[in-house]
Amino acid sequence: MYNIPALNKQIGKEVSNYIDQLTKPAGSLGRLEQLAIALSEMTEAHFPVVTPPGVLVFAADHGVTKEGVSAFPQEVTAQMVLNFVNGGAAINVFSEQIGALFAVIDVGVATDIPGEGFVQEKVKYGTNNFCEQEAMTRDEAKQAVSVGYEQAKAMIHQGIRCLIVGEMGIGNTTTASALLAAISGKPVELLVGKGTGIAAEAVLHKRTVIERALALHQPDASDPIGLLSKIGGLEIAAMAGAMIAAAEARLPILLDGFICTVAALVAERLHPRVVDYMIAGHRSQEPGHRIALDLLEKEPLIDLNMRLGEGSGAAVAFPILQSAVTMLKMATFASAQVSQGGE
Amino acid sequence: MYNIPALNKQIGKEVSNYIDQLTKPAGSLGRLEQLAIALSEMTEAHFPVVTPPGVLVFAADHGVTKEGVSAFPQEVTAQMVLNFVNGGAAINVFSEQIGALFAVIDVGVATDIPGEGFVQEKVKYGTNNFCEQEAMTRDEAKQAVSVGYEQAKAMIHQGIRCLIVGEMGIGNTTTASALLAAISGKPVELLVGKGTGIAAEAVLHKRTVIERALALHQPDASDPIGLLSKIGGLEIAAMAGAMIAAAEARLPILLDGFICTVAALVAERLHPRVVDYMIAGHRSQEPGHRIALDLLEKEPLIDLNMRLGEGSGAAVAFPILQSAVTMLKMATFASAQVSQGGE
Repeated sequence: MYNIPALNKQIGKEVSNYIDQLTKPAGSLGRLEQLAIALSEMTEAHFPVVTPPGVLVFAADHGVTKEGVSAFPQEVTAQMVLNFVNGGAAINVFSEQIGALFAVIDVGVATDIPGEGFVQEKVKYGTNNFCEQEAMTRDEAKQAVSVGYEQAKAMIHQGIRCLIVGEMGIGNTTTASALLAAISGKPVELLVGKGTGIAAEAVLHKRTVIERALALHQPDASDPIGLLSKIGGLEIAAMAGAMIAAAEARLPILLDGFICTVAALVAERLHPRVVDYMIAGHRSQEPGHRIALDLLEKEPLIDLNMRLGEGSGAAVAFPILQSAVTMLKMATFASAQVSQGGE
Repeated sequence: MYNIPALNKQIGKEVSNYIDQLTKPAGSLGRLEQLAIALSEMTEAHFPVVTPPGVLVFAADHGVTKEGVSAFPQEVTAQMVLNFVNGGAAINVFSEQIGALFAVIDVGVATDIPGEGFVQEKVKYGTNNFCEQEAMTRDEAKQAVSVGYEQAKAMIHQGIRCLIVGEMGIGNTTTASALLAAISGKPVELLVGKGTGIAAEAVLHKRTVIERALALHQPDASDPIGLLSKIGGLEIAAMAGAMIAAAEARLPILLDGFICTVAALVAERLHPRVVDYMIAGHRSQEPGHRIALDLLEKEPLIDLNMRLGEGSGAAVAFPILQSAVTMLKMATFASAQVSQGGE
């Protein structure tokens, strides 16, 4: 169904050799060198381009908020969509900083949002409470994946060279934790954190809620559409779809925090090769993030104790990708007539 | 002699309160929030500005290279000055990325460098071999500090809002390690690494060289000019002077790696308050860097296994400062009409 090309390891080797000719001690730019090689393998370019990046923020609501799992009321999802439209959210100011194309997509907010300036692709007015029933049907899950896929394709058509996917959905750390528990098989208490900022007692409650859902649905970790329909979120489905579209087009995907990385694990189950196009942006404070990153075998670029979501951590990390490709503009020892060192 | 103002803690408190009103869970932008507060205390601005940054690269040679401590021949210092002039070095491409003003200063290269495009403020044709005699006179040390101080003042006058100081000097990890040993009182074997890339045997030799110098000069850690004259480097002296000028003008100083952080420790001994204006940019792979950062009580922003110097790590970290101040452009809960969460 999806068609993701293999990395071009040959170009990676050539770029690696070229980096060793640049006017600096061998290996002295550390992870920037590895990043430049990885980006060349993804993009099949000796001088990869990552600008402009594109930021897609998918918004949706979560029926599980009825269980009282979030510090914020559900109406905040819709309010924040308007904040994104008006340029007032964290991801707006960081997107502007990095010169990103930006779009926010209502893929499943629980209410109708007035006005313009966002993409209306609502699959459903929020998920069902997955403690009581399946979050959505399999068809709705597929439809949400497809919304993300098509939105990413549209933005790629507009010329972006790197994809960041963010989210807004009150309650979505609970959903992501449930998905991660199902995918990883790890005990829920290792995965659940305070989300947007709930107290210790509430963390215990959140665990119980997730355990109830897992007991009810017994999700199959190898069936991504089943995972999404039973315990998923509409924005998480869309994010996974967007990642697939980026990988098909050989675009690097810069991962954000916990929710995004769980979406990446879902995407991996849609097509394993998508992981080859992922770079971990930042390490979130959310405890499950480390586990999700380990499953993807990715090491984040920055660790600034952020836990906001929206794509904000990836956007803040993005200039490091720029540095990696900018490095390739350096002079070589030969061109600059600088003597090389010996061991 | 120097006049460094105290941080404005009152503005810091006001900015901290303001950050809690922005449309995000409290504390969810982690270190960006702390950075924004720190920058406001330094600059006395509720909306600090850090662009454009300025990059000053000081180049000088080290007599101790006669002992065979570096993988690169001494002539590379002068060759790299020309590379800086021609825009081919790592710090050039990263400076361009961040829109920095850039200057390279010959404060003590061992040979005359042909051509233009760099600042000629040579105090001395390289230091003396500090294994045999003092690296420079006290007057020369003061003169080198003054070159840095004046160069920073000139660039501040051109409008920079944040200072990065870099260096080029074959052999200068040996010099910096000697200074750090004297300042920290720690055993040399904890401080010495492979510099630009020497083998394990050569690391042992480098340690012996430093121990000989320390035994010969018995430097006094509380006397910065004495440290510089006995076991210092001309570029390290200039870097310390540049930092003082930035702090006097309330400019944040974004530290680079090992050499730069040792220069920061020397600057601290010139005026302790200069440390209030320092932000650690990155963690270098050089083992002494961690010790130098601990002495300054600074935690770096990024850790990408870099060990190049020139100011490159600071330049790559700089966009994070931009993100911190950009964050302050976000909407507040009140202005965006977003409901606040409760615990």
